[in-house]
Amino acid sequence: MRLRFSKMHGLGNDFVVIDGVGQSVRLTPEKIRYIADRNFGVGCDQILLVETPENPDVDFRYRIFNCDGSEVENCGNGARCFAVFVRERKLTGKSVIKVETAGGLMELRVQQDEQVSVDMGAPRLQPAQIPFVADAQAITYPFEVAGKTYDISAVSMGNPHGVLLVDDVKTAPVAELGPIIEHHPRFPARVNVGFMQIVSRHEINLRVFERGVGETLACGTGACGAVVAGRLRGLLDQQVKVNLPGGSLQIDWPGEGQPVIMTGPAVTVFHGQIKI
Amino acid sequence: MRLRFSKMHGLGNDFVVIDGVGQSVRLTPEKIRYIADRNFGVGCDQILLVETPENPDVDFRYRIFNCDGSEVENCGNGARCFAVFVRERKLTGKSVIKVETAGGLMELRVQQDEQVSVDMGAPRLQPAQIPFVADAQAITYPFEVAGKTYDISAVSMGNPHGVLLVDDVKTAPVAELGPIIEHHPRFPARVNVGFMQIVSRHEINLRVFERGVGETLACGTGACGAVVAGRLRGLLDQQVKVNLPGGSLQIDWPGEGQPVIMTGPAVTVFHGQIKI
Repeated sequence: MRLRFSKMHGLGNDFVVIDGVGQSVRLTPEKIRYIADRNFGVGCDQILLVETPENPDVDFRYRIFNCDGSEVENCGNGARCFAVFVRERKLTGKSVIKVETAGGLMELRVQQDEQVSVDMGAPRLQPAQIPFVADAQAITYPFEVAGKTYDISAVSMGNPHGVLLVDDVKTAPVAELGPIIEHHPRFPARVNVGFMQIVSRHEINLRVFERGVGETLACGTGACGAVVAGRLRGLLDQQVKVNLPGGSLQIDWPGEGQPVIMTGPAVTVFHGQIKI
Repeated sequence: MRLRFSKMHGLGNDFVVIDGVGQSVRLTPEKIRYIADRNFGVGCDQILLVETPENPDVDFRYRIFNCDGSEVENCGNGARCFAVFVRERKLTGKSVIKVETAGGLMELRVQQDEQVSVDMGAPRLQPAQIPFVADAQAITYPFEVAGKTYDISAVSMGNPHGVLLVDDVKTAPVAELGPIIEHHPRFPARVNVGFMQIVSRHEINLRVFERGVGETLACGTGACGAVVAGRLRGLLDQQVKVNLPGGSLQIDWPGEGQPVIMTGPAVTVFHGQIKI
């Protein structure tokens, strides 16, 4: 099978994006691992697959695969790339695009300056929805890991996030605690782990250890989850600039029950063709 | 500038290969760093550029750039990919291809089973030719690094190699000693550092810390340099299988003054087009 694809990135969080509408695509976990391999394949953090939706009221179905072959619910940086991709490939002319994902419906808004605003939906905070093991919903939860107790926030943005406060992201124990928290039994579907430093009421620094991937340059849903966590803790205003290792996102969240709006760049690097 | 390229690999040592004969190509160090970046660009260990030769008796000029933008003399895995590339792109129909590199002339022989044999030339062993600082040529040299003295072999295969014997490549201090030896003042042009485990008289395991790159999955000239070093030490026969993390190469070296013949695979992964 000869497959056309685009390589894109959002703040260095990089994707192989595949049009599954205009060409017939069958991805097995083995093929996904091959495509995602940086030495033997194309190389990417995740693979995005554009499909015809099941729901007639939306424009596309958008699926996300980790490089280990597993399918995930949502990815904010990927959503921005997805929106630019379907317009570049002339699969739609709309600037407001509705998509269904394994994590629910999403609305993408392409701005004139090539920034994309994504309605990421309202965060889900009840433990069972995340999923997170706790007796009742709380702003933070005492959380034991590696013999110490941390105050963790637990948020779902379609995918689960655990967020810890740190004094300085540069020295945060991302590589050490990330994998332990990812596989902690209180997160039965595993979890993305955010390490957040509060700079001011409208700016944070953030590093994210992504589930099934490891630390990445920029996790879009992680930026949303962190701002939600910081807002609930009373530390942040509605509009927050999130500085990630790969660049910055603008996050807007009015408060509980409201959707999170994420705005940021999406870049097409090259177009390719591969036999798989 | 819109650039067509192929992504290829030899044992996972991966390359962006660019036809500079059929299209006009101007690579600056900045563009090279962009292309080689695995998140923001295409991603590769090195960039191979095919050009029209200056010498009328050879078929091509073949240039190699590290991801830091510096130009290097030779790369064995790259040479195999180069040979498959010029045939796939129909730049030549020959199965024996002569090329000029910054490290000298090379002859490439494409076999029917898609393996490529490369005449890597005769190793240069005189210290000044490597370049290596020593009073006289020797089989091994006492070499001080990190407070310990090692017996190091010093060989040029167009590019400089230092080779250490280890009991087991799995536990070899590649990440620790590699960068220190690479920048050691006795190797004034820096050096590729090989850690060689003797399995038998016709098989070795090898890990290589490449100059300007770090540890790679498979270094072709490193495999040659290691076999030369092992032969000179009296530990190996003429034909040696070299097991690298990315796969195996077959090295044939009759002895001093004779060329080293390296045989191994070259794989085209995908074709792409990028604006730079």
